[in-house]
Amino acid sequence: MPDMYSELSKLAESDMYPFHMPGHKRNLESTPFKGAFRCDITEIDDFDNLHDASGLIKDCQDRANKLYGADETFFLVNGSTCGVLAAVSAVAGQDDSVLAARGSHKAFYHAVYLRRAKVKYLPYKIDKSLNIPEPYTAKEIEAAITDDTKAVFITSPTYEGKCSDIRAIADVCHKAGIPLVVDAAHGAHFGVGDSSRIPESAVSQGADIVIHSVHKTLGSMTQTALLHVQGDLVDRNRLRRFLRIYQSSSPSYVLMASIDLCMKEMEDHGFARMEKLLNYRDKLDSGIANCRNIRILAAGKYCDPGKVQIYDASDTMTGQQIYDILREEFMLQLEMAGEKGALAIITGWDTEEGINRLIEALIRIDGRISDIIAGYETAGDTINAKPTALFPGKDVVSVELPAVKTELYKAWDAETEVVPLDEAAGRISGDFVNLYPPGIPLIVPGEEISLGLIEDIERYLAIKLNVQGVLDIGNKGIIDKRGILCVKQK
Amino acid sequence: MPDMYSELSKLAESDMYPFHMPGHKRNLESTPFKGAFRCDITEIDDFDNLHDASGLIKDCQDRANKLYGADETFFLVNGSTCGVLAAVSAVAGQDDSVLAARGSHKAFYHAVYLRRAKVKYLPYKIDKSLNIPEPYTAKEIEAAITDDTKAVFITSPTYEGKCSDIRAIADVCHKAGIPLVVDAAHGAHFGVGDSSRIPESAVSQGADIVIHSVHKTLGSMTQTALLHVQGDLVDRNRLRRFLRIYQSSSPSYVLMASIDLCMKEMEDHGFARMEKLLNYRDKLDSGIANCRNIRILAAGKYCDPGKVQIYDASDTMTGQQIYDILREEFMLQLEMAGEKGALAIITGWDTEEGINRLIEALIRIDGRISDIIAGYETAGDTINAKPTALFPGKDVVSVELPAVKTELYKAWDAETEVVPLDEAAGRISGDFVNLYPPGIPLIVPGEEISLGLIEDIERYLAIKLNVQGVLDIGNKGIIDKRGILCVKQK
Repeated sequence: MPDMYSELSKLAESDMYPFHMPGHKRNLESTPFKGAFRCDITEIDDFDNLHDASGLIKDCQDRANKLYGADETFFLVNGSTCGVLAAVSAVAGQDDSVLAARGSHKAFYHAVYLRRAKVKYLPYKIDKSLNIPEPYTAKEIEAAITDDTKAVFITSPTYEGKCSDIRAIADVCHKAGIPLVVDAAHGAHFGVGDSSRIPESAVSQGADIVIHSVHKTLGSMTQTALLHVQGDLVDRNRLRRFLRIYQSSSPSYVLMASIDLCMKEMEDHGFARMEKLLNYRDKLDSGIANCRNIRILAAGKYCDPGKVQIYDASDTMTGQQIYDILREEFMLQLEMAGEKGALAIITGWDTEEGINRLIEALIRIDGRISDIIAGYETAGDTINAKPTALFPGKDVVSVELPAVKTELYKAWDAETEVVPLDEAAGRISGDFVNLYPPGIPLIVPGEEISLGLIEDIERYLAIKLNVQGVLDIGNKGIIDKRGILCVKQK
Repeated sequence: MPDMYSELSKLAESDMYPFHMPGHKRNLESTPFKGAFRCDITEIDDFDNLHDASGLIKDCQDRANKLYGADETFFLVNGSTCGVLAAVSAVAGQDDSVLAARGSHKAFYHAVYLRRAKVKYLPYKIDKSLNIPEPYTAKEIEAAITDDTKAVFITSPTYEGKCSDIRAIADVCHKAGIPLVVDAAHGAHFGVGDSSRIPESAVSQGADIVIHSVHKTLGSMTQTALLHVQGDLVDRNRLRRFLRIYQSSSPSYVLMASIDLCMKEMEDHGFARMEKLLNYRDKLDSGIANCRNIRILAAGKYCDPGKVQIYDASDTMTGQQIYDILREEFMLQLEMAGEKGALAIITGWDTEEGINRLIEALIRIDGRISDIIAGYETAGDTINAKPTALFPGKDVVSVELPAVKTELYKAWDAETEVVPLDEAAGRISGDFVNLYPPGIPLIVPGEEISLGLIEDIERYLAIKLNVQGVLDIGNKGIIDKRGILCVKQK
C-alpha cells in the first residue's frame, strides 16, 4: 500500500513543476522547513481530496482504521477540536439534550452553542486528595439518561489519564438507543501493546464516535487527529457535512502525511513503541521508589502509564512549585501543574537521557522537601508533614453545579453587561468562567451566579490561580476590583 | 523584534527537555520533517497562546499587521476557511440578512447555516467569453443594500484574479452603517511593490474585515491565513470568540512560524518578491505574444498579474484540454481548468526555469492548435476558427438565481429524500449542488428547483463536467439515472 509521504516524495523528486498553490512553489531556498515544504502541496490530480476522499487519502485513512478497527476513520487537520465540534454537531440539533461531563473540552460547549442543543450534566466528582476529576461509571450514566437524551458525551481518558469503563457505558447507551461519543484525545495509543498495562481503546469497547489526537500521545505533528465512527446510531452524512464545515478547504498535506507516517510507524513498530513507554514508566516508578515525599499516581488498566502525575505527599510543595523547580533548575518542561500535582507526559518517543534526568531531578527535589521539613522540625514548628502513599478515591467529593436558567446559546448571544463580582449573586452569567487547571468551567452562560461561586472565585484569585473570564474593572486605582459578564437585565 | 522561528530554534537548541505534548518529543530520528518537528511544540511557558495572544504570538501578529496596517491582525491555522466562518459568524446572527455574492466560498454558506442568517444575493454576472465571474461595483451594492442588511460579504480578488473597487464599496457600506467583509484569500500579496501593476490591498481600501490566505499567493505553508479587522462596526469580542471556536485548541507552531517567516520575508524583501512576480509575468506575456491562438487574460490594476488565465482564442481546445496536455506531456501542473480557460498561478517564489518551460509548452500547444485548424481547412470543413484578442466584458450575462423558499438552515437540517432529477421541478432543494469549476452553487438548500436548472444540470453531466451534489440512483442497470436531495414533503 502506498503511503502519503512516499507519494509526496515521488512528486517532489519528479520533473513536475507547480503552477498552482501553495505560492512557495516548493522552492526550498526560502525556508528552514525543507522536509515539510517539499511535501506541501494542494489538491492536485492524483492526490485526492480530504473532504471527499476516494484515493490516496482514503487509503491512508483506511490504514489508520485498520489499526483501530472502527467502520470508518477520518483524518483531522484542525485537531481533536474539529472532531469534537463535528461529532456533537452530528448527534445534536436545536433543543436536543446531550448528557455530558462538566469537564468536557471547550469544543463540546462550542458545538452545543452553535447547534443550540441542551446539556444535562453527569455528576461531577473530584478526587480532593489528588485534585483531579474522577472518571464515570455505567451506573451513573444509566441513572442520568432520560427519554429526551439524544446522545452521551464523555472524556476518557481524562487529561490526567483516568479512564471510564467505555464498554459498559456503551452498552447502557445502546440499550437506550443513543450514541456514545468519546473524546479520547489523550488515548490514541490505547489498545496497542501489553493489554494488562495499556488501557483498552474506546473503539474496540464499542463507542459510536471516538476522537483521537495523534500528536498528544503518539508521534504525529501538533494539530493532527483522527475521528472514528461505527454502528448505525450516527448519521454519517451529517457527520461528513460537519467535518467539511469545521476544517480548512486547503488542508495541509504535511499534517496529513505526518498522521500517515505515525500510523505506519504504529503498524510496523507499535508494540515496540509501547514497550518503550512501559519501560520508561517502570524506570520512573522504581527510580523514585525510595523518595520520602515525592509520589507518582499509579498507572494501570484504567490509568494511562503515559501520564506521570507527580505529588509531594508531605504537602510541603504545591504542584506548581515542583513544576517551576523542574523547569527553572533542571530544564525539564512539564505539561502542566496545579495546586496539588504536576503532570509530565511520557511516550514511546522519549529518550533514556530524558527519563534519567527526570528521576534525578525528582530525587533532588525530594531531598529538598525533606530538608524543609527538617528545618520546620528544628524550629519547633507544629507541622503535619507525614508523607504517606497516595490514596486515590479516598476523598472523592461531588461538586454542586450552578442552576441552568437560560439555554447556553441564548445567554451567550444575549446583550451582556459587566457586573462587579460582589454584586453578581443571583444574576445570569453571559460568559464562561474557567479555572485553569483543570480548565473545567466554574460557570457556563445561562447559569445562575451563586454566592458560593463568588466566594470560590475570590478565593482562587486570592491564591493567584488562573481564573479565565473574570474581568479587571478597576476601583478608582486603590485595589483591584473584579467583574463578571452577566446577561443584561431588562 | 524576535521572530517565532528563532525563538523555536533557541528552544530546540537549548537543554530544555519536553515532558509535554506533542508525543514525538521533537525526537528527529523518527521523521523526515526534521526542520518542522524540531519546532513543533505546544503552548508551553514563554510561547504564548494563539487564543489569547499577549506575548510572542502577539508580537508576530503585530509584524503582519504592520505590513497590512489594519487595527488588528490574527494568525489563522485552519486556513481562510476559519477566517470566513469567524467573520460571518461575528457580523450575522439569527435571521440577520447578509448581502453577498453567489460565488462566495462554501465557508460563507456554512457560517450562514450555523448562525441561521439569511443571504440576499448580489446580481450574479458571468463573462461568457471568458467563462469567469465578474467583480462587483459600488453602485450594484448600493442598490442592493436595504434597511435590514446587516453586512456585506464579497470575494475580491476572485479565483481568477478579478478585483472589485473595495474603496468605493466600503464607502457605500459605511454610509449605511454596516461592515464590509472581504474574502481576499487570493490577495495576500496585494499592496506590496509597483502600485500601478499590483492591485491595492482591501485593508488599505477600508474593508472592515479582510481574510488573506498566506499560502495561496505568498510563501507560507498550506492551511495558513490572516484575518485583519479595523474600525468599530465589528464586535471584536464576538470575532475573537468565533476565532477560538473554529480553530484547534492545539494550534501548530510550525504553521504559525511559517506565517511569521513569510511576513518577515515580505517585510525584508517584499518589494523584490513582487518585482520577481512582475518580471515573470512580463516574460510570459511577451513569450507568447506571437502565438496565433493562445492568449493570456491581461493583468492590471484590477486584475492580479499572478493569475495566468490561458485561453485558446480559436476555440479549438478547451481549458481542460490545455491543462491535460501541459500536465501529461510537459509535466506542468496547473491550478485548475474549465470549459474555456486553464489557470496557472505564478508567484515571487517561481523559478526562471519553470516560467521558460511554460512559455515553451504554450508555444508548442499553439502550433498544434494551428495544425489542427489547418487540418480542418484542408479537409474542407466549415469552421469558425479565427483567433482574435480576448475581449473581457464583451459578453457579460446576468445569471438568474433560483427562488428562495425556505431558510438555508431549515432546509439543510430538514428531513430529505432523493428525488429523480427529471421529477424534481418545483421541489425544494435539501442540499447544495455545485458546478466545478468555478464552484459556484447551482442551487442552495431551501431554493426551488426549476425546469431550467434541471436542463442545465443534465447538459453539464452530458459534457462530463464535475457537478457535485447530484446522486447516482441507478436505473435497473440500463442507463445512469440521477437524483437530487429534496426536502421531504409532508
